Amino acid sequence: MNRRMIAYILGKILLVEAALLTLPMVVAMFYRESAEPFLIPMLTLILCGILLSHISPKSRALYARDGLAIVALAWIAMSLFGAMPFYISHSMPTFVDCFFETVSGFTTTGASILTEIEHLGRGVLFWRSFTHWVGGMGVLVFVMAIFPASDGHGMHLLRAEVPGPAVGKLVSRLGDTAKILYGIYLVMTVAEIVLLLLGGMPLFDACVHAFGTAGTGGFSCRNLSVGAYNSPYFDLVIGVFMLLFGVNFNLYYFLLIGKVREVLRSEELRTYFLIVAAATVTIAWNISHLFESFSTALRYAFFQVSSIITTTGYATADFNLWPPYSRVVLVFLMFAGACAGSTGGGIKIARLVILGKTAVSDMRQMLHPNAVATVRIEGRPVSSKILRSTHVFLVVYLLIMSISTLLLSLDGFDLVTTFTAVVSCINNIGPGLGQVGPMGNFAAFSPASKILLAFDMLAGRLELFPMLLLAPSLWRRHSFLR
Amino acid sequence: MNRRMIAYILGKILLVEAALLTLPMVVAMFYRESAEPFLIPMLTLILCGILLSHISPKSRALYARDGLAIVALAWIAMSLFGAMPFYISHSMPTFVDCFFETVSGFTTTGASILTEIEHLGRGVLFWRSFTHWVGGMGVLVFVMAIFPASDGHGMHLLRAEVPGPAVGKLVSRLGDTAKILYGIYLVMTVAEIVLLLLGGMPLFDACVHAFGTAGTGGFSCRNLSVGAYNSPYFDLVIGVFMLLFGVNFNLYYFLLIGKVREVLRSEELRTYFLIVAAATVTIAWNISHLFESFSTALRYAFFQVSSIITTTGYATADFNLWPPYSRVVLVFLMFAGACAGSTGGGIKIARLVILGKTAVSDMRQMLHPNAVATVRIEGRPVSSKILRSTHVFLVVYLLIMSISTLLLSLDGFDLVTTFTAVVSCINNIGPGLGQVGPMGNFAAFSPASKILLAFDMLAGRLELFPMLLLAPSLWRRHSFLR
Repeated sequence: MNRRMIAYILGKILLVEAALLTLPMVVAMFYRESAEPFLIPMLTLILCGILLSHISPKSRALYARDGLAIVALAWIAMSLFGAMPFYISHSMPTFVDCFFETVSGFTTTGASILTEIEHLGRGVLFWRSFTHWVGGMGVLVFVMAIFPASDGHGMHLLRAEVPGPAVGKLVSRLGDTAKILYGIYLVMTVAEIVLLLLGGMPLFDACVHAFGTAGTGGFSCRNLSVGAYNSPYFDLVIGVFMLLFGVNFNLYYFLLIGKVREVLRSEELRTYFLIVAAATVTIAWNISHLFESFSTALRYAFFQVSSIITTTGYATADFNLWPPYSRVVLVFLMFAGACAGSTGGGIKIARLVILGKTAVSDMRQMLHPNAVATVRIEGRPVSSKILRSTHVFLVVYLLIMSISTLLLSLDGFDLVTTFTAVVSCINNIGPGLGQVGPMGNFAAFSPASKILLAFDMLAGRLELFPMLLLAPSLWRRHSFLR
Repeated sequence: MNRRMIAYILGKILLVEAALLTLPMVVAMFYRESAEPFLIPMLTLILCGILLSHISPKSRALYARDGLAIVALAWIAMSLFGAMPFYISHSMPTFVDCFFETVSGFTTTGASILTEIEHLGRGVLFWRSFTHWVGGMGVLVFVMAIFPASDGHGMHLLRAEVPGPAVGKLVSRLGDTAKILYGIYLVMTVAEIVLLLLGGMPLFDACVHAFGTAGTGGFSCRNLSVGAYNSPYFDLVIGVFMLLFGVNFNLYYFLLIGKVREVLRSEELRTYFLIVAAATVTIAWNISHLFESFSTALRYAFFQVSSIITTTGYATADFNLWPPYSRVVLVFLMFAGACAGSTGGGIKIARLVILGKTAVSDMRQMLHPNAVATVRIEGRPVSSKILRSTHVFLVVYLLIMSISTLLLSLDGFDLVTTFTAVVSCINNIGPGLGQVGPMGNFAAFSPASKILLAFDMLAGRLELFPMLLLAPSLWRRHSFLR
């Protein structure tokens, strides 16, 4: 355990967060709001950051457990400091609420405890949405893009932070990979802002919704979410961009360097679009009686499917009032999630493809015990290590979800609210059904439940293990995981 | 594919079912009811049975796929013929209802489409509960106990029918194993009947409830289930016997031959009792305000926990009205199920232990990549084949559950009813929550949904694969599972 190196990297991360806070502060000053809510945390971050990064590590070696610990600690620390602007500006009643909202922001969940969004200050609203953008691609990827790090050590961090069963480098140097990813991310975000401006959305609103889309977060600056604009054009732009940000970013890199073939043969991508198409059409058919025409139903169905499968969580309609079939489909899409290596949450399509193919292959073996069964994705056999880790991911995922549902049920809400609140948080969606539906919020839960749900959001965003193994990786002796 | 041998064994099974029908016919005649509802199916069964078992197989070789096909076909055929007494006696409105009720009986689910049970004829009620007793230990195990079968061929049948991740023979001869299992089963059933009689329950009611307990089925002859007697003594007897029938029957055999140590070191047994104790105490605490004293709450909590974890489904209270925490715990117990090798359904504690241990072992490996991690149960390493098949079981289980929920949601019931109806059927419980709660029933579903739920009950009872692989194992060319 290289504690000095962990402290050193944490220090760097806090300094980056201090730098990130200048943006909302400028926005606040532009709108003639107080800069104080941002200045105080910024100075605190600089102080802590300098203190920590002055600890000179004796060795720069990082092992897998160090990587898990850094990622978990970084996300918790960033959320604690990131909650300060909300607390200082009195935007939310308690610090637990501020922490919940910040975790929801960084993890790109978009679940809110706010009942009234539109009366918040511009600077605070900007910071709230900006956390989506920062958390979407990952804080450590950002740090790696800025500070040079040796590849061997950085891989542990990348693996722990980037979603998906198999993480690879795009180019030989890790720092360059991080720069490429952030470059694509930035260009796509700017493209969305421009398209929203062209449709007549104010710049501030365009930035907020582009941040929410890019990070697949879902915070809006309007109480009625994207539905407030009631514009088919905005629905289409945001709907399509949500889908695009749910695609594995590696594929965009392949497109850029002309490897179109690699993109077309991606089984995950094809499955992703197939699920979106099937869900959109069947939901549109199921809700068509609620709208004046089938094409309107199709518009609302597409937006909601795109919003939920990418785990963004924007809403243009109160799907809590849709018929059971539509609600069940949306809950299943919450589990499915977007593609690995995207900014989306959930189980990820790649994992579902692996799990499905393994099941079919094993059933084939039951019929023909002597046949040799190998699971292949895109022509390549899947290693038994990835198969096993995917299965263990599923088990741990179900376990965290079950325990969370059990604990949350003590708050006494109805079962649909309780269950979908957990599903929504662990998959980083935002809205659930019942009282946490698209027009509801998470304000009514007890403080303990809010901390539990914040844990679920972090566990979901970091793909379970960093959060679960944080304690045993910090203890010298860990009896449970001996 | 040995079609002749499959037909031959099916014929034998139909003859056994004809013989089983004599019992309810005698009961009907004793109560001066018409024997016709039993005589007609009996004669049909004898005719079909003789025709089929006269097909002389060219070879007696049975492969894994033949075993899967026989088990699935046998259960479907027995349910179709077993539905005839209900249909002929006009006990239920449609043949689909009769089929649903019979599948629910044989699979020991106990889900009913009946709104009014007490006006049914005694013969029909007896047959309804007797299907639980027959289905509990397994039809093919019964056939093996009667007809001599060579061990190599019988193992495929035993494996396909007896629940649990690993099925072993108790003694060297398979037929003897089947006889021992049925012997223990019979003795325990008689013991329960005697204890219920001692408490003053009428013989007919005692038989019905002992059959329901032994098979972990849950059909009662009273509208209010066991709650109708409102007797702490009956609650205790049935509550304890439900738990006992949820224990791996191999352990009873070990007890009989004096291998007490084997029993005490069973991790599954200890986990099973631990879960029961934890669930009982926390539910009692959660519902204590609904009852006059904590001990009364404990009595109702124990009965319901025992009933649900063993997948029996008897009720002494309408737990649909209990607070959210209690309902969530009961839904989780539905998934857990009883021990492998018992008459109970669900995922089985053994599988949960394997899944949990694998997850912990793999997380340990994340912290210490160089350590060697083996999953051990009761000191013995678990083979990677069992690990993998357990994981695939979980995936296929979740898949069937998801697709069923999706299809059932088209009936338009609320989400809790829809979801728990599927959970209840696939785990062979009986009651769910909402409209299918302990005081509700399955009558309102559409005929297509009833067939879907019947499929789920069979899939759950036969541990998924025989039902799923029935079609591809019968087709000569199966494109999906090439």
